[in-house]
Amino acid sequence: MSAYEELLAHERQTQALAQVMGRLGWDQETMMPRGAAGQRAEEMGALEGVLHARRTDPRIADWLEAADAPDAAGRAILRHVQRDYQRNTRVPARLAEEIARVTSTAQGVWAEARARDDLPSFRPWLERVVALKREEAAGLAAGGDLYDAALDDYEPGASAASIGAMFDRMRPRLVALRERVLDAPNQPAPLKGEFAREGQLRLARILAETFGYDFARGRMDLAVHPFSSGSGADVRITTRIEESDPFNCLYSTIHEVGHATYEQNVLPEYALTPLGQGASMGVHESQARLYENQLGRSEAFTRWLHGRMQAEFGDLGLGGADAFHATVNRVTPGFIRTEADEVQYNLHIMLRFDLERALMAGDLTVGDLEAAWNDRFKSDFGVTVPRPSQGVLQDVHWSVGLFGYFPTYSLGNVYAGCLTQAMRRDRPALDRELETGDLAGPLGWLRVKLQGHGALMEPAATIEAACGFAPQEGPLLDYLETKFSAIYGL
Amino acid sequence: MSAYEELLAHERQTQALAQVMGRLGWDQETMMPRGAAGQRAEEMGALEGVLHARRTDPRIADWLEAADAPDAAGRAILRHVQRDYQRNTRVPARLAEEIARVTSTAQGVWAEARARDDLPSFRPWLERVVALKREEAAGLAAGGDLYDAALDDYEPGASAASIGAMFDRMRPRLVALRERVLDAPNQPAPLKGEFAREGQLRLARILAETFGYDFARGRMDLAVHPFSSGSGADVRITTRIEESDPFNCLYSTIHEVGHATYEQNVLPEYALTPLGQGASMGVHESQARLYENQLGRSEAFTRWLHGRMQAEFGDLGLGGADAFHATVNRVTPGFIRTEADEVQYNLHIMLRFDLERALMAGDLTVGDLEAAWNDRFKSDFGVTVPRPSQGVLQDVHWSVGLFGYFPTYSLGNVYAGCLTQAMRRDRPALDRELETGDLAGPLGWLRVKLQGHGALMEPAATIEAACGFAPQEGPLLDYLETKFSAIYGL
Repeated sequence: MSAYEELLAHERQTQALAQVMGRLGWDQETMMPRGAAGQRAEEMGALEGVLHARRTDPRIADWLEAADAPDAAGRAILRHVQRDYQRNTRVPARLAEEIARVTSTAQGVWAEARARDDLPSFRPWLERVVALKREEAAGLAAGGDLYDAALDDYEPGASAASIGAMFDRMRPRLVALRERVLDAPNQPAPLKGEFAREGQLRLARILAETFGYDFARGRMDLAVHPFSSGSGADVRITTRIEESDPFNCLYSTIHEVGHATYEQNVLPEYALTPLGQGASMGVHESQARLYENQLGRSEAFTRWLHGRMQAEFGDLGLGGADAFHATVNRVTPGFIRTEADEVQYNLHIMLRFDLERALMAGDLTVGDLEAAWNDRFKSDFGVTVPRPSQGVLQDVHWSVGLFGYFPTYSLGNVYAGCLTQAMRRDRPALDRELETGDLAGPLGWLRVKLQGHGALMEPAATIEAACGFAPQEGPLLDYLETKFSAIYGL
Repeated sequence: MSAYEELLAHERQTQALAQVMGRLGWDQETMMPRGAAGQRAEEMGALEGVLHARRTDPRIADWLEAADAPDAAGRAILRHVQRDYQRNTRVPARLAEEIARVTSTAQGVWAEARARDDLPSFRPWLERVVALKREEAAGLAAGGDLYDAALDDYEPGASAASIGAMFDRMRPRLVALRERVLDAPNQPAPLKGEFAREGQLRLARILAETFGYDFARGRMDLAVHPFSSGSGADVRITTRIEESDPFNCLYSTIHEVGHATYEQNVLPEYALTPLGQGASMGVHESQARLYENQLGRSEAFTRWLHGRMQAEFGDLGLGGADAFHATVNRVTPGFIRTEADEVQYNLHIMLRFDLERALMAGDLTVGDLEAAWNDRFKSDFGVTVPRPSQGVLQDVHWSVGLFGYFPTYSLGNVYAGCLTQAMRRDRPALDRELETGDLAGPLGWLRVKLQGHGALMEPAATIEAACGFAPQEGPLLDYLETKFSAIYGL
């Protein structure tokens, strides 16, 4: 075998084992008996050790040195392997293990602290996590910016400076839109009532199929937090049910189907290579958001969904399809990111981005974090955070060391804005398709233009190849202003 | 760390990874989407490669050389590691891979051949499997008996000669009992009717708890073939439902709970060591059979079950508890091992044992196998096998290379007979406990006397330690003759 073939064979087995690791995570959230947590931690630790050894195998350096890629896909594979190898070997095993151990405990402390609104108990753990992640980023950055190094794990090629500049351009328009929407005289009615679990699940399955999810290569279960897991031929999703709020189940299903079909639609020949998955967290999120919002919450599609929901649950008490569309897109004040609407979501992200950037730079201490959060929230959202669980303690991310992850949510929204503009350019009859619930056209466009390529290109190039223009915030902002002006009669 | 501690740490991670492998197998039979089979094969192949490398790691030989066990458990661990290492290194990787590959295909060919009663299509595959397993056994036997070498994988310390001699002592008494039972004038009535799936599942869960299964460290799902999977804190079982035959679901649940509680009850300090699991396939089967038959099909326990079934399904149309007990223990002519009753089951095993012993010795060819099967069946059961799916094609075992496995089923029955005799000696009020459905007493006896020890002792020593006498066939035969004479009025 050539060096390239040996590298590929090694990589293929590593990818297969990484899929096994993902399956253990899925099992833990859906099937695992509660008494098995301790044993499971050992099982995952052992497998993590195997993966780390494979990913830092010194033969990789030799293979990379000698490897000759046969084509563009091969060159992209070598690029991924090179970058991953460099990242993996730059973090000492001792540090990686300590991060795994400390964040594992910190996550439990965080959950307890959030439940009891007890920030002081979490503070020392967050301090340890920040210190360890700064140490890790320093190793990865090799003299460069710490936050950029952290970001690179989730969105290769992105930089804090360019994201920060983009956020600065977005903020005033979003704040202005939010204020106009909340001040509008006619506010949409909320959905009221109880919606049977079986009906919600039945509709969720219909929506999953409508949005192209292949149940022959996946399955849907219940979990506390919805997620998508796996690549290639085994991509599973979860959802959750609140009897008083069917939109929670239905739209989280559409969102996860966006993630899952991206994985299912990557070209089969990329399976179990570094190309056999989404290009980045941001591009992944763009699929989930586009499915959920630009398609799923569009006027045309909600018209179809309205009919389906009435068939399942009877009259919803909202009036016609226009009122239903307004209810689905209702904007309300709130403190919680995961409950935020399209208008306000990115403002939540910008707040976190600036704070975590300051933490990583050493310009903000964990001790000053709550005050900084609350000041910024008052300034961007106009209201005072009543308690830590509604503010700085609301997200799990920092407790598990996910610094640099938050901005990928907004990048996903920005990418989704670009993709929607391009899709509407290429498919002028899109609304007529959405109205009938037949999404084969737009989903096929996404598959051919973007999803099939997997991680062949860098994230920004992936978006540009699909859209014909470089990713930029304008299309998203234009879309939001047009959509919410129409709904709220601005 | 000392050599012993290093060995233990290595072994612990290997055991954890083996648990992961078991979980993948469970997932495949219960949860996996049908389109994921190909990818799953690669995932399991990659993990198998990791396990094989760890199990043949040359450092194990060095550690064993230098290791000093601190106590009896440590000495038992070294004994297990020594034996496993020897077995694993005696089979060349090339041969192990070929066996895995050929049996994987052969299993599919077998399933197809059985469905179409097409023995000729399976014959060349079985020939390849037999040849490969003989080659493997020759490597393992190092000059000794090939069948003993195969047997050693499942029942360490057992020998074909001693099992053969025991079977020769058992056969005449079992054949005689079978004939008397089938000729008896009063035959029990079969159970008739349809039994709702939900009711069967509810009762299966009650039975699982009654027999000590800990759902906090396990779960129950549906699968085509019932099984138990996993060790320690995560031991899962499956069952199946036939609406016309609730005993299928209920008694297979009790059977699997016997396997599963054995794993759940091993002392926690043995977890993730070679001691943290059942002592052998035979001892494992003894727990499953004892739960299912000596306890579950006893007159006293069926009295309790009869009440439960009537509460769930209404009148069963059988008359009283005595008739119900007779129906549960009904003996009927049949060709299929897995459907056999307590009286005939071991006769099915003896037939397979003699044939597979002859195959391994080279005294019987695959071409002559069907005729040998049918002759022997006529002689032991008095009837002619009508077609291969009712005869030589009925079991999966040989297609996947499980030679030497069958006798462990009968050893399990023999061990269960010994354990029951000892349990009745130590707990004279056993029937009164069984009648009330409160099994804490007998299950506690088993846990303390046997299950807690895991694989600390060799299989025969495990049984002897629990019973106070060496394993022997007498108690089983006495039990069967007494029980069925009473039921059939012989």
